[in-house]
Amino acid sequence: MSVTAAAGFVAGGTTAGLKPSGKPDLALVVNTGPEQVAAAVFTTNRVKAAPVLWSQQVLADGRLRAVVLNSGGANACTGPEGFADTHRTAEHVAAALTAVDPGGSTVGAIDVAVCSTGLIGERLPLDRLTAGVDALAGSLTGDGGQAAAEAIMTTDTRAKQVSYVDEGWSVGGMAKGAGMLAPGLATMLVVLTTDAVLDPALVQDQLASACRRSFERVDSDGCMSTNDTVILMSSGASGVRPAAPDFQAALDEACRDLALQLLADAEGAAHEIAITVTHAATEDDAVEVARAVARSNLFKCAVFGGDPNWGRVLAAVGTTAAAFEPDRLDVSFNGVKVCVDGSIGEPRDRVDLSGRSVEVKIDLRAGPRSATVWTNDLTYDYVRENAEYST
Amino acid sequence: MSVTAAAGFVAGGTTAGLKPSGKPDLALVVNTGPEQVAAAVFTTNRVKAAPVLWSQQVLADGRLRAVVLNSGGANACTGPEGFADTHRTAEHVAAALTAVDPGGSTVGAIDVAVCSTGLIGERLPLDRLTAGVDALAGSLTGDGGQAAAEAIMTTDTRAKQVSYVDEGWSVGGMAKGAGMLAPGLATMLVVLTTDAVLDPALVQDQLASACRRSFERVDSDGCMSTNDTVILMSSGASGVRPAAPDFQAALDEACRDLALQLLADAEGAAHEIAITVTHAATEDDAVEVARAVARSNLFKCAVFGGDPNWGRVLAAVGTTAAAFEPDRLDVSFNGVKVCVDGSIGEPRDRVDLSGRSVEVKIDLRAGPRSATVWTNDLTYDYVRENAEYST
Repeated sequence: MSVTAAAGFVAGGTTAGLKPSGKPDLALVVNTGPEQVAAAVFTTNRVKAAPVLWSQQVLADGRLRAVVLNSGGANACTGPEGFADTHRTAEHVAAALTAVDPGGSTVGAIDVAVCSTGLIGERLPLDRLTAGVDALAGSLTGDGGQAAAEAIMTTDTRAKQVSYVDEGWSVGGMAKGAGMLAPGLATMLVVLTTDAVLDPALVQDQLASACRRSFERVDSDGCMSTNDTVILMSSGASGVRPAAPDFQAALDEACRDLALQLLADAEGAAHEIAITVTHAATEDDAVEVARAVARSNLFKCAVFGGDPNWGRVLAAVGTTAAAFEPDRLDVSFNGVKVCVDGSIGEPRDRVDLSGRSVEVKIDLRAGPRSATVWTNDLTYDYVRENAEYST
Repeated sequence: MSVTAAAGFVAGGTTAGLKPSGKPDLALVVNTGPEQVAAAVFTTNRVKAAPVLWSQQVLADGRLRAVVLNSGGANACTGPEGFADTHRTAEHVAAALTAVDPGGSTVGAIDVAVCSTGLIGERLPLDRLTAGVDALAGSLTGDGGQAAAEAIMTTDTRAKQVSYVDEGWSVGGMAKGAGMLAPGLATMLVVLTTDAVLDPALVQDQLASACRRSFERVDSDGCMSTNDTVILMSSGASGVRPAAPDFQAALDEACRDLALQLLADAEGAAHEIAITVTHAATEDDAVEVARAVARSNLFKCAVFGGDPNWGRVLAAVGTTAAAFEPDRLDVSFNGVKVCVDGSIGEPRDRVDLSGRSVEVKIDLRAGPRSATVWTNDLTYDYVRENAEYST
């Protein structure tokens, strides 16, 4: 149930002293092989943190030995100095791993990805970080997944992990982040591991596809981080080469599971909202419409207030370029069709929004496609978390 | 200082009983000529309220005798029945005006625009509305602007009016709406009047241009109403034909004045924020960047919390397609340049955000253009207004 669920991986977590709270803040995940196939998906924000710029270069060859992850600082918007800090971190990890020899060979900085999360615009205390790496490198184990998952938490209330076991091979993973709660920017960091033997030519597309229908459809507050990173590493240690569709299915399930864990841990939120758009002309249309609703502050406030305000849903739908006719839109909240033909449907007092889970369905009546985007409501606690607790 | 500031207009406001509060809820503005030149700008939301659909038709010929405006119900998403209600309202106003003869000639329904604001998805009580029209039609005066402006208020805390006097001609106006506070959808209704003699071929472009740099740059919460309407009517009663640039300047000033009144009356807000983007390659780039920041909930929460969080500004800038280099971005809050070259600038504790007015400047260093978008912070009261007070 962790990044070490798959064979061929060791991991660990420790307290390097980056966080004022004194909680664990440094994690290391190492692929001990025999293979080092890897892929990654990064934030599309043009303002990218130093560790993202570094890891993009590192992953360019589709190979990776290790990922070092820190909470307690995003190392974003820190200029050339911040990039140098990331570079030095990778060099230090490479030297430390070479010294303890977990994979049986020399490790170079170019084999080490770096992920950081925390406040933007502040340098990391590099001496503490490298001392933490030294402590961690010698204590990595095949049971270290849990400690690693705990060390990457920021305002997360629980560690997020997943595992998937098939015939002779498995997928493991951990994630950090939560939709609405993060001081900073709700950065999402994900490390996925597998001992399946993968086709290096396919793995990047497979990861991108899995992300597209999971992490990219969680849209808690519409804000895009400078640090988001999803890394997949394969050790090939099982010796089993699953059929591509089977591995894709496992990866999809692992990503979706972690994505919903992120959503459920949005501590500022009072509701988890699934917005499903049906009968869209294209999947892109369905996603565009669902995302527009997910980003409507008025809609999100209404859900917080227990109000199935379909008018605000329609107003958001109306801002999109998707194919639909305004007088042929149907909207339901938790199964009650409160809007029919773009007008008044069943009485809205039949809708019960007292539970945490809300399902909004929007029928565009324009085609065969559908998609779901997940979001949260907009609450006092969201404002508090993001107004009072960040500096 | 009202829609009746310009010669050739009478107006009035009354309580028709559309609002549960018993406050005034029906207004009428009538152009008594000699000319009836008119132009209008409507919401670009594809889900348009019945009065918008009606008024678009009415304004197609660039002529208008009267505008009837009601608060207490938006008549949006009310289907064909809602459109019939709007049509009947216009017919009733036309008959009532013809009966009292304020303009000296027969008035047709096609000469009457309708504006509505309030909750979406509910029919209006048409009997009360038409009775209100009857009461109003006989009591219109050249001093009725104030009463009209008060009758269109919803959660507005004060009536919003403007007047501009030039040599021998003038512009008057009233507006309703406020960025962040409205239960419903923060509908903005604006009626502008002038006694200047206008060129019918120019007036639509002149109004659109004025709106583009005023109302369209107030972006309190990113939500687009189904009912937004801006109508300009000219009586030509002054007999003065100002040069086109002079009239444009007056119109620009009147629109900007009203737009800032809307912003300042966002009662859920604790700060008015002007986001100015400078040195953009194009004006569109400048607006895109400023709007992205204006719509970042994390940025808006930070301002509420008194935190000049330039990292959240950069993260929002990074989501745009505007021309810039991430490592050449400068950001200042109230004159303190907290971000230089996309990295750490002056200490953020030098920034004082204790006042209501916040000025964020983003220098893209990519060209000669600039633009300002105005927004508000995201506060507990915004959530309360939009969660608890709407049904």
